[in-house]
Formats: sequence, C-alpha cells, structure tokens
Amino acid sequence: MTEIPTPGSPETGGIANPPVIILIEPQLGDNIGKAARAMLNCGLVELRLVRPRDGWPNERATANASGADIVIDNATVFETEREALADLNRVYVTTARTRDAVKVTFTPRSLAPEMRALAARGEKIGVMFGPERTGVRNEHVAMADAVVTVPLNPGFTSLNLAQAVLLIGYEWWQAGDNTPDYQIKMADNTPASHDELERMFVHLETELDNSGFFRVEAKRPSLEHNIRNIFNRAGLTHEEVNTIRGMIAAMRGAKHKPGTK
Amino acid sequence: MTEIPTPGSPETGGIANPPVIILIEPQLGDNIGKAARAMLNCGLVELRLVRPRDGWPNERATANASGADIVIDNATVFETEREALADLNRVYVTTARTRDAVKVTFTPRSLAPEMRALAARGEKIGVMFGPERTGVRNEHVAMADAVVTVPLNPGFTSLNLAQAVLLIGYEWWQAGDNTPDYQIKMADNTPASHDELERMFVHLETELDNSGFFRVEAKRPSLEHNIRNIFNRAGLTHEEVNTIRGMIAAMRGAKHKPGTK
Repeated sequence: MTEIPTPGSPETGGIANPPVIILIEPQLGDNIGKAARAMLNCGLVELRLVRPRDGWPNERATANASGADIVIDNATVFETEREALADLNRVYVTTARTRDAVKVTFTPRSLAPEMRALAARGEKIGVMFGPERTGVRNEHVAMADAVVTVPLNPGFTSLNLAQAVLLIGYEWWQAGDNTPDYQIKMADNTPASHDELERMFVHLETELDNSGFFRVEAKRPSLEHNIRNIFNRAGLTHEEVNTIRGMIAAMRGAKHKPGTK
Repeated sequence: MTEIPTPGSPETGGIANPPVIILIEPQLGDNIGKAARAMLNCGLVELRLVRPRDGWPNERATANASGADIVIDNATVFETEREALADLNRVYVTTARTRDAVKVTFTPRSLAPEMRALAARGEKIGVMFGPERTGVRNEHVAMADAVVTVPLNPGFTSLNLAQAVLLIGYEWWQAGDNTPDYQIKMADNTPASHDELERMFVHLETELDNSGFFRVEAKRPSLEHNIRNIFNRAGLTHEEVNTIRGMIAAMRGAKHKPGTK
C-alpha cells in the first residue's frame, strides 16, 4: 500500500483534510481509475467506494489511474453509505437535475470556498457521487447537508463520472491556488526598455524614409502611429528588439550591431 | 451527418461562434469521444482533428461520445495544422509545463472572458491540444496567440486529454452562465414566516416547560436561544413547521392541528 499522505503534505496542496470523494455503487473500473487520477490532479487523496459493482481492487481502475496509485491503493470500500459517511462532519451530494428536497444548491465554484472554510476549521468533508447511469437517489440527497449541481449546457448535461469528480476537485484546487490570471513568460529574456524601443522605431522610420516608404508626407504621422502600435502591442523583449533591428539592417543591405544606436 | 448547429443555437448556449477545439495527433478514439462529450456539455460543437492516429471516423470515438453525435458527425480532419487553423482569427494552445517562448499564459478561468469578448465581436477562436503523451510541441506554441495552462497539483499535473478539453469548455460555459452561486430549492413548499416560527417556538418552549425540561430557571434564556438558533439555521418551510409542531404534540400525547395557534 502506498503511504498515506500526511496531513498538509504536498500531494494535498498543504491542506490537512481535503474533501473525501465518495462514489456510490460505481460501475466501471475505468471510471473509478479516471476519477482517482482527476482527484490527485486536484490534491484530493481519499477515495471511498460504496458497493462497487465489480469488487475491489479492480485492475481497470489501477490502469486508468495513470499513476495516481496513492489514491487507488488507499481507497476504502463500504457496504453502506452510513459507514462511509460516519466520520465526516459535512457531506455534499452532486446531482445533475433539480430535486424535490428543500435544500441549498451550490455550484462547484461557490461550494469551493465553503469547503475551504470548513476544512480550515478542521471539519472533515465528503462529496458523494451517484452511480454512472442513474445518479444519486433521494435517500442520498437526504443524507447530505447540501447539493452541488454543475451549470452546463442544458441541452446535454450528461457528465461522465470522472468528469464530475474533476470539476469538483478543480474548483477546490482553484479556491486555494495563487496562479496569476495572466502571466508573461520571459524565459531567459529581459523586457525591452522604452528607450530601446524608441531607438528601434527611429531606426525603422529612418530606413523606411530612406526606402521611400513615406510617399505622402501628410500620412507620415498616422502611419508612424500604426507601426508603433503594432510593435508596442507585442510587448517586445531586449533580445527581440535586436532581432528586429537586425532584420531592418539586413533588408537595407546593412549590418546591425547589437547595442549600437 | 447530424445537422450542424446554426449560429446562436441552443446547443451553443446562444453563442454564434463558440471556440473550435483542435486535437493534434490524437491517439485513442476513447479520448476523442470523451472530449466530444465534454465539448457538448459546455456548448462547444466544432471539433477538428489533425492527423488522428487511427483514422476517422473512429468507432471508439462514437461510442465514448455518449450521445454527443453532433460533435462527432461534424468533426473535420486535416493533414496539417496550417489548414486546421486557416480560418481562425485567434488561436490558443494548452500546455502542461512552462515553455521557453516569450508568450502570455492564461489560466482557463482568465482566458474564458477574453474568448467571450472576442467571440462577441465576431472573431473565430480555436484552442489546440497536443497528443496524449507528449503534449504540444514548440512549433505549436509558435502558432498560437497565447498559452493556457491549468493550475493543478504541481505533484501530479498529468491531465487526461478529455479532462483538459472539459476544463477549457467548463470555464467557457461558466463565463456566460447566470446560475446563482447559491440557490435554496423549495420544490412546492413555501418559506415559513417569522410569525409561524415564533408560534412554533412558543409551542415548543411551553411543552418543554410542561415536561420539566427547564430545571434551572437561570439557564432558561441561553437554552431558549440555543434551541432557536438550531431551528433558525435550518431555514424552515411552512410545511416543515407543521411537521415539527406535530412532532411536539405527539411526544406530549396531544394532537396538533395545522393552522391553530
């Protein structure tokens, strides 16, 4: 058995008690394995199976987990929902359609911060998923504190089990993730300074002038603005400025030495 | 061939030109089918395949699409990336790891509003996904306007192809979805009024009093507050208030008539 991740371990993104995933009567081992893989993608490590159709362990599950062995090896099997939920403080249930029960319905996105807040105060949380074809039954809704439904194309809401697990896990992970919305990868490059850009533009404009590009003097200012807009939009690096100056020089039959004016 | 969804059709959530999904050298038909299913879940209907390993059409793809026939039947096959991207105005590429290219990197969540804004002004957008095992190559990054990377457990980022397609589609759909974060399903029930609740509490407190529950008079106020907190947190309905009053009456050997004081 793979070692169980210690509380707050890197596998869980440093969270001591990430939500437990409970699959009720899962059928295909493929789906269990893919769900396990999706769980580990999102820092979820504890999988519970209630009456898995094909027994446990399941070769297809292991094969489809694609390396998420820690989840598969530590998965536990229960005969009843009651036992599977016994130690949990808070239980949510995923449903595709509206239920008759009077109950709060979250989206995965709005549920994630609630689960983060509960986990932070030490509560043990579980999210239940029903059998592939039929989904959860009303008795499962009655066991849960609240319902989660993924907003999707109303014309085609049939979501694969592993996909449903992924979306809950994805939102859980995002709620604790600090990745900037928008990053500009520079690799080993350095951003160009405005002075470098200015000198590049003067170089370009001079050579365009020398080539007779500005035929109508009245149009020169707007053409120059357009050209500057194109290159400024690209967010050039120091290295790219040199490449462009080399291109200009080459096209004009000259040679550009990096660093020269 | 299934009829192609008309611009702005219900399948696409009313959007005339949702993003096209481009799979480069996809291998398993299973994954192509599951990607198609995930696409339709999210209102994406146009799938393009560049050099699919096992040819096209592909039985496994159809079987795994689970009814997303509209996507499978209209999928188109291309010999080169250049042809697959020819009519697109804006192209994004998904990568799991950081690239050397100097390029903007979005998260799926930050990309979605950008794609919505571009679609709204009539641009045709595509998102490219690389082969299952190797991901996209540097040449694909160079073809794209920007990169998308899903923030996930850094210890286990290996995402299944269909799962990656789902996450891009999911965020696309959410960016145009108006589902409230938090809904309280009432079915046919009506919420209780505070007057009803007050009468229920008086009923309960009276019967608790009659049963000798408040042994220490000094503790009565805090006990009464605790009890009220429990029931107020539950957001009771009119029907549930009657159920609870019936329970109180039954336990005290009386009969509660709904609507009575």
